[in-house]
Amino acid sequence: MTDAYVHGYRERESERLADQAGTLVELLHGDTAYPAGATVLEAGCGVGAQTVTLAARSPEARITSVDISEESVAAARRRVQEAGLANVELRRADMLDPPFEPRSFDHLFVCFVLEHMPEPAAALRRLAELVRPGGTVTVIEGDHGSAYFHPDSTAARDAIDCQVQLQAGAGGDALIGRRVYPLMVEAGLADVRVSPRMVYVDASRPDLVEGFTRRTFTAMVEGVREQALEAGLIEAARFDAGVRALNRTTEADGTFSYTFFKGLGTAA
Amino acid sequence: MTDAYVHGYRERESERLADQAGTLVELLHGDTAYPAGATVLEAGCGVGAQTVTLAARSPEARITSVDISEESVAAARRRVQEAGLANVELRRADMLDPPFEPRSFDHLFVCFVLEHMPEPAAALRRLAELVRPGGTVTVIEGDHGSAYFHPDSTAARDAIDCQVQLQAGAGGDALIGRRVYPLMVEAGLADVRVSPRMVYVDASRPDLVEGFTRRTFTAMVEGVREQALEAGLIEAARFDAGVRALNRTTEADGTFSYTFFKGLGTAA
Repeated sequence: MTDAYVHGYRERESERLADQAGTLVELLHGDTAYPAGATVLEAGCGVGAQTVTLAARSPEARITSVDISEESVAAARRRVQEAGLANVELRRADMLDPPFEPRSFDHLFVCFVLEHMPEPAAALRRLAELVRPGGTVTVIEGDHGSAYFHPDSTAARDAIDCQVQLQAGAGGDALIGRRVYPLMVEAGLADVRVSPRMVYVDASRPDLVEGFTRRTFTAMVEGVREQALEAGLIEAARFDAGVRALNRTTEADGTFSYTFFKGLGTAA
Repeated sequence: MTDAYVHGYRERESERLADQAGTLVELLHGDTAYPAGATVLEAGCGVGAQTVTLAARSPEARITSVDISEESVAAARRRVQEAGLANVELRRADMLDPPFEPRSFDHLFVCFVLEHMPEPAAALRRLAELVRPGGTVTVIEGDHGSAYFHPDSTAARDAIDCQVQLQAGAGGDALIGRRVYPLMVEAGLADVRVSPRMVYVDASRPDLVEGFTRRTFTAMVEGVREQALEAGLIEAARFDAGVRALNRTTEADGTFSYTFFKGLGTAA
C-alpha cells in the first residue's frame, strides 16, 4: 500500500465506499463464492466494505482480511461484528511484505487495491505466491477512463481527470481497469479471464442514479476538490462546473456509464 | 437518411459491416426474436448485414427492410437470397417520408441508423408512428466515446475523433449510444429500457482481437483517412500513428473496449 492514498480513510469516504458496495454488490461479487473450509486472503480490505460481502457469500470459508492501516482494520472489524460474521479474521499487515507463509491460502481476493500501487504486477505476483498452486486469484478494479455520460461536458471530464492525475501523482493508476488482464498475466497467473462489469445508469434505474452516479462516482470526484485546487490542477470554478455537469447527468434525460473489470486467474 | 453518409457503401465497407455483424450477432441480437406472423419494419437496412440475422432468428415473422440507397437494397437482396431466407421483403424507401400507413407494422427495428440523422428523435418518432400501439421498437447504436484501450494513445484517440468530427459534420452523432434512452423517450415511446452491450477484447479472446478490434473498429477508423486528411482534421503522420496504436492494442498485452447500446420501447 502506498503512503499517499488518494481516496482515503475519512469518515465520509467510508460512507461512500459503503454506498458503492451496497449498490454494486451483485454486479461485482455475484459470481464469487468460496467452498466450505477454503482459506481466502483478502489483501487491502480497507474499512471492510467488500469484506462483509465476501464473508456473507462464502459463510463456510475462512477469510483473512488485512490492511496496512490500523484505523481501517478497526473499522472493518466493527463492520464485520455488526454484520454478525464469524468467519473473518482481521489483522494489520503490509501487503508488500506479507506476514504469511508461501502457498498458505487457497484463494486470494484483491479489490480496489492495485490501483494505488506503483508496481501493481510485482505486488500481485508477491501476493499470488501466498496462494497454493491451483488456487484462484480474483482482482477487481475500476477505470475512470470508462466514464462517459449525457449530456457530455468537458468540465466534468476535467474534474474527473483531477482524480486521475492525483492518483498518478501518488504512484497509482485510476485507469487500471483496462490493464487487469496484462497485469495478471505478468504476475504469473494462468488461465486469466477478465470480464467487464459495466454500470449503466439512466432515469429508468433510480437506485443507480442515486446510489452510483450521485453518491458514488460524483461524490468521489467531489472528494478530491481540495487536493486538486491545492495542487493547482484546475480552477475552482471549472471544477465546480464539472461537478454540476456530473449531477446534471442524473436528470430525467441523462445517462452515465462506468465499467469495472474483474479478473480471475489460477496460481501456478 | 442524410445524403452525406460517413461510413458508406463501398465494397470494403460492406465487408467490414459483414465482419462486424458476424462477430457481434449474439451480443447485439441474441435477445431479439419476433413471433410467427408478426410484421417487422427494419428501417435503414443498408447492405443487409443485420437483415439476415433478424430474418433467420424470426423465421416465422415477416420482415420488411428498407433503405434509401438503391444499391444497398440490391446488395441486401442478394445477401438475403444467398442466405436462403424467404421472409424478407426489400424495398427502397426514404425513412423520413416512409411509404407505409400509420400503425401498419407490429414492430420496428432500427440499427446503426439514428447515428446518421440530424434529428434522430424526430425521425424515430415518425418511424414509431408506423407501429401499432403496444408493438415494440428496438434501437441499436454504438458510441465511439466508449472506446478505450491499453496501451492508451492520444494519437489513436485523435484518429477516432476524426470519425466523430466527420460524422458530426454530416449531421450525425458517433457518440449517440449514450443518448439512446433519452431519444426513445423523446420519440414518445413507453417503457423504455436500454441495456449496454460491451465488447471487451484481450488476448484470451482471439476471435474478437481479429474480428472486432482489427477488422471492425480499426478498419472503420482507417476507412476515414482520406476524408479526414482532405478536411484538414489531422496530419497524415498523426493519423497513421493513431492507427498503428490501435493495432498495437491487438498484441498479447493489449486490451480494447467498446460499447453498443440497445433500447427496447413500446409504441403508444
